[in-house]
Amino acid sequence: MARIVVKFGGTSVADTARIEKAAEKVAREVALGHEVAVIVSAMSGVTNQLVEYCRTISPMHDAREYDTVVASGEQVTAGLMAIALQKRGISARSWMGWQVPIVSDDVHGKARINDINTPDMIKSLGNKEVAVLAGFQGVTLDNRITTLGRGGSDTTAVALAAALKADRCDIYTDVDGIYTTDPRIVPAARKISRISYEEMLELASLGAKVLQVRSVEMAYKQNVPVQVLSSFDEAIGSDLPGTLVTKEDDIMEQYVVTGVAFTKDEAKVTLVGVLDTPGVASRIFGPLADAAINVDMIVQNISRDGNKTDMTFTLPETDIAKTQEVLKAQPEFKDCEIRVDENVAKVSIVGIGMRSHAGVAKTMFTALAEKGVNIQVISTSEIKVSVLIGREYLELAVRALHAAFGLEKAAA
Amino acid sequence: MARIVVKFGGTSVADTARIEKAAEKVAREVALGHEVAVIVSAMSGVTNQLVEYCRTISPMHDAREYDTVVASGEQVTAGLMAIALQKRGISARSWMGWQVPIVSDDVHGKARINDINTPDMIKSLGNKEVAVLAGFQGVTLDNRITTLGRGGSDTTAVALAAALKADRCDIYTDVDGIYTTDPRIVPAARKISRISYEEMLELASLGAKVLQVRSVEMAYKQNVPVQVLSSFDEAIGSDLPGTLVTKEDDIMEQYVVTGVAFTKDEAKVTLVGVLDTPGVASRIFGPLADAAINVDMIVQNISRDGNKTDMTFTLPETDIAKTQEVLKAQPEFKDCEIRVDENVAKVSIVGIGMRSHAGVAKTMFTALAEKGVNIQVISTSEIKVSVLIGREYLELAVRALHAAFGLEKAAA
Repeated sequence: MARIVVKFGGTSVADTARIEKAAEKVAREVALGHEVAVIVSAMSGVTNQLVEYCRTISPMHDAREYDTVVASGEQVTAGLMAIALQKRGISARSWMGWQVPIVSDDVHGKARINDINTPDMIKSLGNKEVAVLAGFQGVTLDNRITTLGRGGSDTTAVALAAALKADRCDIYTDVDGIYTTDPRIVPAARKISRISYEEMLELASLGAKVLQVRSVEMAYKQNVPVQVLSSFDEAIGSDLPGTLVTKEDDIMEQYVVTGVAFTKDEAKVTLVGVLDTPGVASRIFGPLADAAINVDMIVQNISRDGNKTDMTFTLPETDIAKTQEVLKAQPEFKDCEIRVDENVAKVSIVGIGMRSHAGVAKTMFTALAEKGVNIQVISTSEIKVSVLIGREYLELAVRALHAAFGLEKAAA
Repeated sequence: MARIVVKFGGTSVADTARIEKAAEKVAREVALGHEVAVIVSAMSGVTNQLVEYCRTISPMHDAREYDTVVASGEQVTAGLMAIALQKRGISARSWMGWQVPIVSDDVHGKARINDINTPDMIKSLGNKEVAVLAGFQGVTLDNRITTLGRGGSDTTAVALAAALKADRCDIYTDVDGIYTTDPRIVPAARKISRISYEEMLELASLGAKVLQVRSVEMAYKQNVPVQVLSSFDEAIGSDLPGTLVTKEDDIMEQYVVTGVAFTKDEAKVTLVGVLDTPGVASRIFGPLADAAINVDMIVQNISRDGNKTDMTFTLPETDIAKTQEVLKAQPEFKDCEIRVDENVAKVSIVGIGMRSHAGVAKTMFTALAEKGVNIQVISTSEIKVSVLIGREYLELAVRALHAAFGLEKAAA
């Protein structure tokens, strides 16, 4: 007997028929003797509709009221899921965030969970009652509804699993696991059966969109094994058909490089001809950080003309206008040329094995060079190497790296 | 400065545009210096959609989960209304039933309000913050969401008005007041500017569908003046454009008969040839009451053949099958013939003035006789006379009575 938390995302509870399919899976887990807590998202399209209502009335809506409106989507699914389970003879009840309660801070629209009060739910689970929790929502200390931000149901699931000391958290979604890279680019991409938290965190940060970065961080910190699996397949979580994100020690077979991630959402910005004096970097990146702009890769070029240099960095494309505004507002950079290149892509290799294997970067650079791919910026961490390249080389580079590190499926 | 509670029904908050119109009205009340609490229903069609989801998954759904699902409709409108008010520069916040809390019993699906905790809301109103309360919902002592049954938002409004000791409760709907009878049958029907609780209660019970019987009962008991008015007109509640339901003493101009009500929803049932022995009535109506069948008019015919009689009564058409089943289950009536006549209608005249005026019933019967309308059953109370007639005579009878008691509009 295990205690498991299972989460169904929007496509897995798209309509009443899909809710019934999801309930079937939960029923099979219960039949195995497990204690099950279920987290549900809103039905397909519901959240967008609710957000649209708020925006129609006022684009400057009060975030507290927005949360009240939007959180209703998960409330509906939670009640319906409880009904679908009861129909199958399973004792079940819905829980709203405020009923548990899931206490969050008061940063409405993107609140963080501070505390989950579990005794009542644990008692309920002990009575073989499935707990169906509305995802994506919490309640402040002064009793207002909060939402955890888009994708917040994953966070709810992992946080609840941690609070309940669950054996596993299964995230049902529309893909059947984490792949060595996007199979649409590399058809031979292999589904990874186990991956470490650290690697998953890098992959999620670097562009793999299956799991939210925040929920992976929390799983890592709280040591909650998380499985990504498809709600459209026949298998259930306890069959372990998906990708299990877990601690390094639990992974038997370790590759040097686990996956190749990429993103096209970043742009390259070059601030040309800044004075190469101490503190110039902090005078550029301080104000950008204050404006909540996430700068990623940074390169400072060799000084030229004795005292001038160029500063190159990457940031989300959506922040370009804001970045130009922030920089132009500084007297020091007012007259500097700002070059923006959106025609770039970032490709990264990730793997915990890098820590103990030399030559990984060399293999990467050689593979790219052989295909004639020019590297514009490089950044590294202990378990990843990222390169910025021209966007037209993206697919070529991903395929080359996937092959160079032997990530293809084993021959059948 | 007054404290008023205003309630907007489904058609008055049908979509975001109608919510904005409703917010305009509230803004005008606030501009007059009033403290305002707003009760909202769900947007048009939303409740039906949510009920349909529950039924699709399981017709035997758990009422607790049904309430959780269905109550979300008002939650959405409450948040949107708060946003629409804030957009107009008015301080406002939404309140869910559990946030107030509005404590109800645990009869899910048709709960009754036991207590409304008002200190926080009164403080909020005192700070010139409009309170927007989700109608139709409460919370049990063990923190589960309840709904008050269809039309329950009127009950929420009146109960809140009583708890807040409000000066008036305005019920915005799609009609502009209570009429002397249905204007579709009598085009000269007059809008009543003031009507007593007792009369309104009779009219609501007898078929006038504008206000829920339960909310009128509560207004009567708690002495809350309730105004019915249209959200589609330009006027706001403080202009007193609608019909004010209030205590008798506050009504200056009193008619003998205030209105003519009617219903086609009842059927006449005759149990033929029952033994005319003591207690036969209780042996018929006791089991029907136990089966929650509301019997309305009752006539016991003169005994014939020495010891047999016929018992005639009316009840809602929808309960006919159940009634036959209940009666046939009694050995005493197993072999009695049960005649059912659905081709009937009940017409009633209502007026507090009847108490002090003799001859009202006579005027009624004469008016009907002159039109050749045969009366099948009669029942009376202190302030009403009801007659059961053939359904085809309904319109004729209503027009005749409306004229006989001089209820037409005053000539312009």
